[in-house]
Amino acid sequence: MADQYARGRDGDGSRLPVLRWDETAEGPRLVLLDQTRLPGEETEAVCADVPAVVAAIRSLAVRGAPLLGITGAYGVALAAVRGDDVESAAVVLAGARPTAVNLGYGARLALAAYRAEAVHGAERAASAALAAARELHRGDAEASDRMAAHGLALLDELLPGDGYRVLTHCNTGALVSGGEGTAFAVALAAHRAGRLRRLWVDETRPLLQGARLTAWEAARSGMPYTLLTDNAAGSLFAAGEVDAVLIGADRIAADGAVANKVGSYPLAVLARYHHVPFIVVAPTTTVDPDTPDGAAIEVERRDADEVTRGTGGGRPVAPEGTEAYNPAFDVTPPELVTAIVTERGALSPVTGGGMAGLWDGTGPLGAG
Amino acid sequence: MADQYARGRDGDGSRLPVLRWDETAEGPRLVLLDQTRLPGEETEAVCADVPAVVAAIRSLAVRGAPLLGITGAYGVALAAVRGDDVESAAVVLAGARPTAVNLGYGARLALAAYRAEAVHGAERAASAALAAARELHRGDAEASDRMAAHGLALLDELLPGDGYRVLTHCNTGALVSGGEGTAFAVALAAHRAGRLRRLWVDETRPLLQGARLTAWEAARSGMPYTLLTDNAAGSLFAAGEVDAVLIGADRIAADGAVANKVGSYPLAVLARYHHVPFIVVAPTTTVDPDTPDGAAIEVERRDADEVTRGTGGGRPVAPEGTEAYNPAFDVTPPELVTAIVTERGALSPVTGGGMAGLWDGTGPLGAG
Repeated sequence: MADQYARGRDGDGSRLPVLRWDETAEGPRLVLLDQTRLPGEETEAVCADVPAVVAAIRSLAVRGAPLLGITGAYGVALAAVRGDDVESAAVVLAGARPTAVNLGYGARLALAAYRAEAVHGAERAASAALAAARELHRGDAEASDRMAAHGLALLDELLPGDGYRVLTHCNTGALVSGGEGTAFAVALAAHRAGRLRRLWVDETRPLLQGARLTAWEAARSGMPYTLLTDNAAGSLFAAGEVDAVLIGADRIAADGAVANKVGSYPLAVLARYHHVPFIVVAPTTTVDPDTPDGAAIEVERRDADEVTRGTGGGRPVAPEGTEAYNPAFDVTPPELVTAIVTERGALSPVTGGGMAGLWDGTGPLGAG
Repeated sequence: MADQYARGRDGDGSRLPVLRWDETAEGPRLVLLDQTRLPGEETEAVCADVPAVVAAIRSLAVRGAPLLGITGAYGVALAAVRGDDVESAAVVLAGARPTAVNLGYGARLALAAYRAEAVHGAERAASAALAAARELHRGDAEASDRMAAHGLALLDELLPGDGYRVLTHCNTGALVSGGEGTAFAVALAAHRAGRLRRLWVDETRPLLQGARLTAWEAARSGMPYTLLTDNAAGSLFAAGEVDAVLIGADRIAADGAVANKVGSYPLAVLARYHHVPFIVVAPTTTVDPDTPDGAAIEVERRDADEVTRGTGGGRPVAPEGTEAYNPAFDVTPPELVTAIVTERGALSPVTGGGMAGLWDGTGPLGAG
């Protein structure tokens, strides 16, 4: 059972763990909090095999860069414990969503552990894969804590005074992580330090992860927060009501270009126009040295239906047959990113050389 | 009956007129196409008195700057024909929504016509008020045609070549006008001229006027269109897929600052960052010489419920008690506006002197 890692440390995350490994009489299960049902319902999606895990990933029952990595690793472990083809399971899991680099990272990590022990038999190899998944899960919680501390130090450095109003997009809290998350974890640390004056929560169309998930996490943590439609952020910037933007990342290219939930790039342009820091918070596992730059990032296109159907189970809102442009992510070039905060520190400015330090072991050496 | 003016000229607007005056056995009625029900249902809101008209305005059953002006005028005529207090009706109608300047313009126009004939008795004064409303209605259709011609000429001048891809926000077509509208009318003219390669339709949260109304009008007119969430516009700009932005306006200050549906300002910032023309299309009645600049524009704040409830009649999407920042409009400063197109021509660049020409009778003297 991994649920001690899946809950927010203070018990202020979800009541159900976001992800747990369950050994049942019928075999192992990967049990996921179904995030598509939040905030109305807390229900779990029980995955008995890899196709079920892939379906949960594609439907966004489970989502968020770090948690997808953890899910990829547990998915490989599930195949291994079941005695399925572990190699092909890793390939299928890694490709379930094209932009999220962590998914492949987690799957490969568990696969490597499996391969390393394969000479000692399938059972021992399966145990090794599961141990690798658990270690990734635990390590992510620690990385969250470190990102939160580095991010808070950076905010305090950039914004001296009596606290700050932070705008965030999508969901980056306990629901995406083995710990308290990425960008949200920084805002939560600021709240605990008495420095968060307001968390502005972009609703994040089309799937409303901000309204459904971030507002839910903020409410549970007692943070001062206000929801807004994504297009209302401009008014807040114009009124001088945003002191910093904090977002997560789904993939960071070698040059520091950031793929994140669609709507991040317009915020980066607004932040630049209004001289507001635009800060990306993500574990180093999100950096993909094999992706040279933003142009090389494949952006997942999702179904028109996500845009045209009503939310909360409502009727369609657009005429039948309406075609929709529905990219899941956008790409922000490094020159618009003030800093990238990882578990190893804050990199600012975002340069190719600084980025290389994130994965070559020399470590980021920027502010914070 | 005014429905010949309310339909799109080609019959490609709504099947029901967007607004009509109906003389029934029980007295006069102002009958409005209920735009909150589109595209799912075409139903009419029948207003027998001024409070009913005000309620229709507040609920957005009727909306859009020019149409609100026409509605204000017919509302005053309705009070006059019924024998109600016309002066107070004009005040109440003008204040039904604070940002829309046309509403007060239309109400005052009908009131002035009423007052001018009041010495000849209430009946003749009421006829004068109704005639003024009808004249405004007819004149708006003509203004639409002229804006469309001037806007098309401007696009052809700014974007020589084989046509253009235009991004628009909110709804500015036959549903907001006695004619074919403002910004949408320009796109429609471009389509008829074979120059519109694509109309990108922002869905326009929270009330989805883009998804519900603009997509509906575009589909009926056979235009090539694609819907997107407001936050996906950034990706289109970054990919070089937007050649111009065309929007309407709810109020234009004396310095050329433009109040329009929330989400317009972020598009203006994106357009500037990507060197794309940002064009505002509105009748001169939208210019308010008594509002010196953008800071003087009162922006209507609407209920949190519009953001937190599901769309298409769906369940709430945010946790109970969530507070929302929900401005109906935002304000774009004149330096971000490439041109303002009115029925009298295109003003570019947008300067205080050029703006003054829009209402002092010398006329705009810019391009197009």
